[in-house]
Amino acid sequence: MKIIYSDQHYHQSPKLELAGGDLVPSFENPSRAEHVLERVKKIGLGEIITPDEFGLRPLLAVHDSGYIRFLQTAWQEWTDAGFKGEIIPLCWPAGQASDVLPRHIKGKVGYYAQGTDSNITDGTWIAALAAAQSALTGAALVCDAVKNGHKTGAFSLGRPPGHHAAKASYGGYSFLNNAAITAQYCRDQGIEKVAVLDVDFHHGNGTQDIFYDRDDVFFASIHGDPMDNFPYFWGHASECGTGQGERFNLNLPLGNGTQFQVWREALKNCLSAIDNFGAEVLIVSLGVDTFEEDPISAFKLKTPDYLVMGADIADLGIPTLFVMEGGYNVEALGVNMINVLVVHHF
Amino acid sequence: MKIIYSDQHYHQSPKLELAGGDLVPSFENPSRAEHVLERVKKIGLGEIITPDEFGLRPLLAVHDSGYIRFLQTAWQEWTDAGFKGEIIPLCWPAGQASDVLPRHIKGKVGYYAQGTDSNITDGTWIAALAAAQSALTGAALVCDAVKNGHKTGAFSLGRPPGHHAAKASYGGYSFLNNAAITAQYCRDQGIEKVAVLDVDFHHGNGTQDIFYDRDDVFFASIHGDPMDNFPYFWGHASECGTGQGERFNLNLPLGNGTQFQVWREALKNCLSAIDNFGAEVLIVSLGVDTFEEDPISAFKLKTPDYLVMGADIADLGIPTLFVMEGGYNVEALGVNMINVLVVHHF
Ligand SMILES: [Zn+2]
Ligand SMILES: [Zn+2]
Repeated sequence: MKIIYSDQHYHQSPKLELAGGDLVPSFENPSRAEHVLERVKKIGLGEIITPDEFGLRPLLAVHDSGYIRFLQTAWQEWTDAGFKGEIIPLCWPAGQASDVLPRHIKGKVGYYAQGTDSNITDGTWIAALAAAQSALTGAALVCDAVKNGHKTGAFSLGRPPGHHAAKASYGGYSFLNNAAITAQYCRDQGIEKVAVLDVDFHHGNGTQDIFYDRDDVFFASIHGDPMDNFPYFWGHASECGTGQGERFNLNLPLGNGTQFQVWREALKNCLSAIDNFGAEVLIVSLGVDTFEEDPISAFKLKTPDYLVMGADIADLGIPTLFVMEGGYNVEALGVNMINVLVVHHF
Repeated sequence: MKIIYSDQHYHQSPKLELAGGDLVPSFENPSRAEHVLERVKKIGLGEIITPDEFGLRPLLAVHDSGYIRFLQTAWQEWTDAGFKGEIIPLCWPAGQASDVLPRHIKGKVGYYAQGTDSNITDGTWIAALAAAQSALTGAALVCDAVKNGHKTGAFSLGRPPGHHAAKASYGGYSFLNNAAITAQYCRDQGIEKVAVLDVDFHHGNGTQDIFYDRDDVFFASIHGDPMDNFPYFWGHASECGTGQGERFNLNLPLGNGTQFQVWREALKNCLSAIDNFGAEVLIVSLGVDTFEEDPISAFKLKTPDYLVMGADIADLGIPTLFVMEGGYNVEALGVNMINVLVVHHF
């Protein structure tokens, strides 16, 4: 298995994050990638390569162009306006989809934001772009595998994560939706059917948003019930897709305190649905904040459970790209995440 | 002119406010009311009375009942969840009107919030409720005046402000929409036509939201262009009302740097529209953050201009309730706000 990694992720190093009404050190920080990389090296998971350049086109295939422009220019506009702190939204178009983009950066931030947890800093765009290019490099490997009849897997070891980023909004530490960008890239490379499996503790609302009306990308997510957990407003079982996309979106919300036995049943339901769909490529949004000691989540998975998870996913037997998402107990992050991957010998 | 005042406003004393990515001392704090009260006493504007009790019914006539319940219980739920800071939203249903209220307080906050500038504290509900009761006490005086053919004015000297609070959301320091609550109260007392004139620097998006589809309450607002100013997503000139309410909502956004001469033309347009409408009662959302030295606004009105503003409004010659809204240069706040009222001898 090839691992794609770029140290550009260090550019996204938010000082603070709003939590419980206080500004606290950000849970999503460079040490996360460090711990995963260290584990990759320690067990010799595979060759570590740097990302190729795919440019902006694959990003614009799933994200709104105004939103991409916003991400590129927000920090400059914010500092030009004289603000000293990191970018946190002030207000937003509550209760409606706004169709007029304000001129002032404070208005733009609210227009494109889903939350206050994802500070934009001077390096956010560089880091997010590098994470997307890493994921795309993995996707290219997987597309080649399909064409050559191999079962290659690849792992994009990057951050910030992506699965909360929607067509035109950021939140949940996510700015560019790496999983969705790669799923679309596979489609554009001629792969007919792509599945995205999201095993992060949190619902992948951004990925859902991007493919909600489509039948060529199947999205399945196992996550903490949004009645009690971030992102709160998406991830209900009743959200099944719309129009052509109806029945191609599968949400399996589980209650707080869920242990692996129950979680694994949900996984098997997802894998069976993905198999029935006939996916040729699988993208896994790989978050391990399902871990029992994760500081911001509520499932009870244990370290050996991630080995079983990885084996179950491998049983699907199709070329698979793993894209790094959440996991905030940094000490355990490397072992847990790599446990999902070690069984993927192909 | 009677002044209604309650010192319950001290219960809303947020420690901090998110601004420019930092937590700073809140611009909306008890010293605002202190300065206005001091000025009222100094010039002997009129008798100062304490509010009567009107209960929750007039609030529920304009606000969603789930929203009112949220305001009553949010602090308790927040502290029960173990959070130590004041309530600041974490995330919200970006790009859609969400129809499922989350169970967790963090989700509820995002469901009902418009912004991060309006910290909910242990005393927010008490203070907001008192401000609403003050305004209602003034409204009752004005309704009596109509019935008795007098031209009485009244001034509700209270905080937190209200004009950004919508049917089911808070923001811009506003939790209960005092102006809207009193306008509806006047309607329920048999007044056929009520006008709300909003002279605060910021668009009264909450008041607009509440009466947007109605032809019995005319809403007129002069404010900083939302392309460049809070609340950013409402207040465009194109927002004229909907359905029965079409042509009963008048927005006059003005550019940053506007001086009184231009501002006064807009005021005359509003007063003329209110006169044509045939309003029997006028409610004024009285913010003086149009002042040239206001720290968060961008108009250039000077202290004597507020005397002229008051005289122009008085010329309308109908019973008028003034409800205190914004104004954040606290030293000048008392003089500027009372300058609007001194001419109201009736
Ligand atoms: Zn997560
Ligand atoms: Zn204001």
